[in-house]
Amino acid sequence: MTDSDSDLRPLEAQSTRRLARFVADLQFEQLPTAVVDEAVRSCVNLLGCTIYGGQHPSVEMVLKAMRPFAGPAQATLPGRTERVDALLASIASGIASHVGDFDDTHPDTLVHPSGPVLSALLPLAEMRGASGRELIAALVAGVEVECRIARAVHPSHYDKGWHVTGTAGIFGAAAACARLMQLDELGSTWALGIAATQSAGLREMFGSMCKSLHVGRAAQGGLSAALLAEQGFTSAQTALEGQRGFIHVLSARANPEALTAGLDEDWELLRNTYKPFACGLVIHPVLDACIQLRERHGLHARDIAHVELQVHRLALELTGRARPSTGLEGKFSVFHGAAVGLIDGAGGELEFSDARVQAADTTALRARISAQIDASLGMEQALVSLTTVDGTRHMLRVEHCLGSQAQPLSDAALDAKFLALSQEALGNRAAAALQALRGLPTAANCTAVARALGAA
Amino acid sequence: MTDSDSDLRPLEAQSTRRLARFVADLQFEQLPTAVVDEAVRSCVNLLGCTIYGGQHPSVEMVLKAMRPFAGPAQATLPGRTERVDALLASIASGIASHVGDFDDTHPDTLVHPSGPVLSALLPLAEMRGASGRELIAALVAGVEVECRIARAVHPSHYDKGWHVTGTAGIFGAAAACARLMQLDELGSTWALGIAATQSAGLREMFGSMCKSLHVGRAAQGGLSAALLAEQGFTSAQTALEGQRGFIHVLSARANPEALTAGLDEDWELLRNTYKPFACGLVIHPVLDACIQLRERHGLHARDIAHVELQVHRLALELTGRARPSTGLEGKFSVFHGAAVGLIDGAGGELEFSDARVQAADTTALRARISAQIDASLGMEQALVSLTTVDGTRHMLRVEHCLGSQAQPLSDAALDAKFLALSQEALGNRAAAALQALRGLPTAANCTAVARALGAA
Repeated sequence: MTDSDSDLRPLEAQSTRRLARFVADLQFEQLPTAVVDEAVRSCVNLLGCTIYGGQHPSVEMVLKAMRPFAGPAQATLPGRTERVDALLASIASGIASHVGDFDDTHPDTLVHPSGPVLSALLPLAEMRGASGRELIAALVAGVEVECRIARAVHPSHYDKGWHVTGTAGIFGAAAACARLMQLDELGSTWALGIAATQSAGLREMFGSMCKSLHVGRAAQGGLSAALLAEQGFTSAQTALEGQRGFIHVLSARANPEALTAGLDEDWELLRNTYKPFACGLVIHPVLDACIQLRERHGLHARDIAHVELQVHRLALELTGRARPSTGLEGKFSVFHGAAVGLIDGAGGELEFSDARVQAADTTALRARISAQIDASLGMEQALVSLTTVDGTRHMLRVEHCLGSQAQPLSDAALDAKFLALSQEALGNRAAAALQALRGLPTAANCTAVARALGAA
Repeated sequence: MTDSDSDLRPLEAQSTRRLARFVADLQFEQLPTAVVDEAVRSCVNLLGCTIYGGQHPSVEMVLKAMRPFAGPAQATLPGRTERVDALLASIASGIASHVGDFDDTHPDTLVHPSGPVLSALLPLAEMRGASGRELIAALVAGVEVECRIARAVHPSHYDKGWHVTGTAGIFGAAAACARLMQLDELGSTWALGIAATQSAGLREMFGSMCKSLHVGRAAQGGLSAALLAEQGFTSAQTALEGQRGFIHVLSARANPEALTAGLDEDWELLRNTYKPFACGLVIHPVLDACIQLRERHGLHARDIAHVELQVHRLALELTGRARPSTGLEGKFSVFHGAAVGLIDGAGGELEFSDARVQAADTTALRARISAQIDASLGMEQALVSLTTVDGTRHMLRVEHCLGSQAQPLSDAALDAKFLALSQEALGNRAAAALQALRGLPTAANCTAVARALGAA
């Protein structure tokens, strides 16, 4: 058995300090244009999800539970009318960002990177009146730290049962807030250390409200960590690499060089991806293929005799539910994903509503769809074979599904996703909210940007 | 290699639910008198520590960092003048309770049980006006759940690098608050689940302020978990025993029958111990022996030529510091412990102050003390051999040091410890504070008890 201790080479002996120095030193001016663009795209995507999720019962519950202890109205809750203190905003927004499973994904580590980071950062930026550039630099710092720490423990960490968006997310939130607060290297080291020792989140909770709570707690814990570090609250300086630190304790096998190799040159944010469809990521290649088949052949549900899906192993492991009965279950049914792709030519929140899952047409078509694992297919791939009632066969193989790194969502598609997600909560203010986010690189003050995301 | 999966027998398949039912059902009336007495003793001991620790810089930092986000004044901070919201009180009090390393210990698991539990419970009881009996029942429920969960993962969990007072403490706080809120079995299950998925705390942080933060975060996280569960916020119902639950993910080898065996009959609180001395537990047998030698032989420092300590392995591993330079370092120096035992005949906070560690007399005597490991000695044992300047030899062997289960601190000693710790902060209110705690079993309202612990 490879022990993680022996994996740790002298080069990585000060990796917590090195990451803290990166956080303390990062300036907006050094960021490549593509990184700034991707930061804005991440904001547009994530905040659309947060606005949509803001109406979820779990968000209502957190607000109701915490209101008796809440401080002054400092921060906007995207998509809602009330403003709350920034720490409460961070946990509520974090939950809202993830509850629809429509947020961004860092494919190499399965981290949903922006939720923990932005949910902490935006309330802080609003409260302190930071500029758009300061927010973007902080977001980039946070995502970089978060994804590198996830890389250092992936995949043994996730396989063991840790929800990496929670465990790595708190580092991202802490790093971003430390950057925005302009903590120095030592202060950023403490922020990362205080984050490390609160890092948590169990995959056992998947299927319950706690899955999204992981994102909210990561945001709130990371913001708290930076606030404490700002006051001089100390941690160990070896939170990641130490013998009893995060990497050794929370992973069986480590890849510690991922923490610092290529720092300042290679940007994890450029690997971020956005979901075109409001369902489990492993359903996406099937849904993509089904929409294309429908359009290409002008198909109607009544024409379809049988559909056969060839998919990656995880598509059946995670989304093999043949008879979903709620919208949430539909999000984890590759059969429902295929059905709405073929019938509706779409896969937004509407297609994964309770009504659409329970409808007669989707129920009938799902019963005519079968699925098999094809070991030769990757996670972004699927092969859909369809037989019509007159015996015609159509086949379509997706190599890189829409939303993958090779087929990224266009700016126009991201804008449309934002507008669709924010329509109900923001009404005719949705377009202005989008404009505010698109204008982040030149925004003098994030307070106005955050306020534009609130409901009237 | 034994895998924890195979250790998990069918009997333990519903252990989270079983513990939740215990929490939901526990009534003060069913508690044996000895358990009620021990609960009061735990309160006296812990709150003395909290009052003393309330002045520590780390507590000031948390209050300063969190004040901009704080809610209304709902809860007393023991030993301080201000009142704050109950969630802020829980984290600040948790830190204060542990920062002096003078709190209670459950020897079988190394958990410091009362800190996480009472630091969450007392603010909640004050805010909701619970009776003393309700507080005691909740404290007993919390300590029981906390210590049983610690037993289920000890020692592999601690050995791996988890600070068990943080990781198990959050369950204790959640269980206690769930009991006080009268959550039903399902609600208590959720409270334990929400606690499980926030469970954290790395031993890497020992020596920094984060060690005490673990207690504060456990208290605040446990209180939050119960508050969320009260609103219907859901978790998995298999947080402890599930394949990706707490036990499997956070320990290499499990002892899951400890979760529920003898529940309602065998009370972990009866195994609680209280420190007579304000230093690392492994120093206690040496200090005890030195005080006895001093009294028995009327020794003065100038009479002592040389002292030889025979100690348990951990005494040198954890407290082998020969030349401490601060009070905090003195708390982890078995040499300083021996010196103040011989010179001052005491081992309170005063003897572990910066001034006493830096004094000429203790420094001189420490240089004449040597220590060796004796593999035949237990953690509660020590052998001290002393040679006077005229060549006389004195020896004393301690079998069970003062404060161990076999030599528990008397009520009078606990009262004296409370008064000594609270003298500076409470002045002439200290006696009334002690009286309020001693009266808990008949107190109609914890609001008055908590208020009695505040400074004027």
